[in-house]
Amino acid sequence: MSRLYLVPNALDLGTSASSRPLDDLLPRGVITLAARLEHWLVENAKSARAFLKRVDAVTPLARPLQALTIVELPKPPKGRAGSLPTRDAASLLAPLRAGHAMGLLSEAGLPAVADPGALVVAAAHAEGFEVEALPGPSALLLALAASGLEGQRFAFVGYLPTEADARAARIRELEALSRRHDQTQLAIETPYRNRALLEALVEHLQPGTRLSVSAGLTLSEGRTRSDPVAAWRARPDTLPLDLPAVFAWLAR
Amino acid sequence: MSRLYLVPNALDLGTSASSRPLDDLLPRGVITLAARLEHWLVENAKSARAFLKRVDAVTPLARPLQALTIVELPKPPKGRAGSLPTRDAASLLAPLRAGHAMGLLSEAGLPAVADPGALVVAAAHAEGFEVEALPGPSALLLALAASGLEGQRFAFVGYLPTEADARAARIRELEALSRRHDQTQLAIETPYRNRALLEALVEHLQPGTRLSVSAGLTLSEGRTRSDPVAAWRARPDTLPLDLPAVFAWLAR
Repeated sequence: MSRLYLVPNALDLGTSASSRPLDDLLPRGVITLAARLEHWLVENAKSARAFLKRVDAVTPLARPLQALTIVELPKPPKGRAGSLPTRDAASLLAPLRAGHAMGLLSEAGLPAVADPGALVVAAAHAEGFEVEALPGPSALLLALAASGLEGQRFAFVGYLPTEADARAARIRELEALSRRHDQTQLAIETPYRNRALLEALVEHLQPGTRLSVSAGLTLSEGRTRSDPVAAWRARPDTLPLDLPAVFAWLAR
Repeated sequence: MSRLYLVPNALDLGTSASSRPLDDLLPRGVITLAARLEHWLVENAKSARAFLKRVDAVTPLARPLQALTIVELPKPPKGRAGSLPTRDAASLLAPLRAGHAMGLLSEAGLPAVADPGALVVAAAHAEGFEVEALPGPSALLLALAASGLEGQRFAFVGYLPTEADARAARIRELEALSRRHDQTQLAIETPYRNRALLEALVEHLQPGTRLSVSAGLTLSEGRTRSDPVAAWRARPDTLPLDLPAVFAWLAR
């Protein structure tokens, strides 16, 4: 039966000089299965081809890269995922209807989590196709594990506003939610704004709130710092914030 | 420098007849690193030894299994993680202070996420040790990806009450939160109560709320069903609910 496979990508974006072979970062079983798929829905075609070249270096692709069907997910308006028109999602699944297995791939980590693709997955379920998420890393949960913060209750809130007053208000709102629900809050930012977000969190969270930042997860220069906000204020950070980062905080 | 490694375990508990080799489920780099670690903090010693035997089958352990230090995390009272006394957490880290690398391991998936270990991680940060989460699967996020529900905003709420009235009230409360925050809610249950939780969700959620259940993730008999509650009511499920499962729902 044709099936939609959610294929994890490595978290290193494949571009860093410190990137390791894909075999170090993803299960061999995932790489072997990816090498057999001929129909792909991807966040970005260029990064998908780079991923498939890394796959090929471990397990030769069943067909040459140029012979594969690689279709980009339509860009949702204003960078918001979740707003793909349903009929687009359905048309993207034509290979499944023709009896082929398909792979869904993000630029990093799991597809459809903090990334496009959820509506395609929903469309596959609506048509009765099997959906299988293959085991692979999520930066969000690696960051949560490395934070030492509450791992029994947590919320991922996506991006914070970039305008300073709105961001400060949102930080205070999320801190209140964290305290009320005893819940770790997780957020991400585009790397060039990482430092601004860190500065805003350190400024607007309460001194006793614990803040953890993981930058460059799975890269050799990656690091996690987890400290009360008061300690972040007292001692400047040395995190590689030019790399993708996840921010987590817990108020008690 | 000594470092605390958060080592992902496979999700299959290593016991199912359909379990695949560890090499199919975890990155080779993680297995290679795990084979070198001599000091372990684990959720359960028996399952940790089973994991290390699976590691050894891929990459020979640096020292014989019997020569490794395997210490169980103290059981928190009433099955609640997060309540480990801080001084216990610190004493568990003695090998780090002696300059050794340590591994932290759960029975399945990532340590310190929906599992014990967060306080040990916090203690490691407090003493200035490096903490590194190694890439591996989280059942929560695989289930979220496979659900096709909102992956931009979600909350993990742990276990629901087992008493029927309290559970119904909590389901309605979480449905309201899902609607208010446009947020997928994720919960888990011990397998022998999976069917009771599914029945309660199908009974108490609104017909238009979307409910996704992933059972047996990464096992060959694993399946995800994602449907509106009305469809769950109309058509009985055929999920393998004797296996570990993750429940996700989204109200809009």
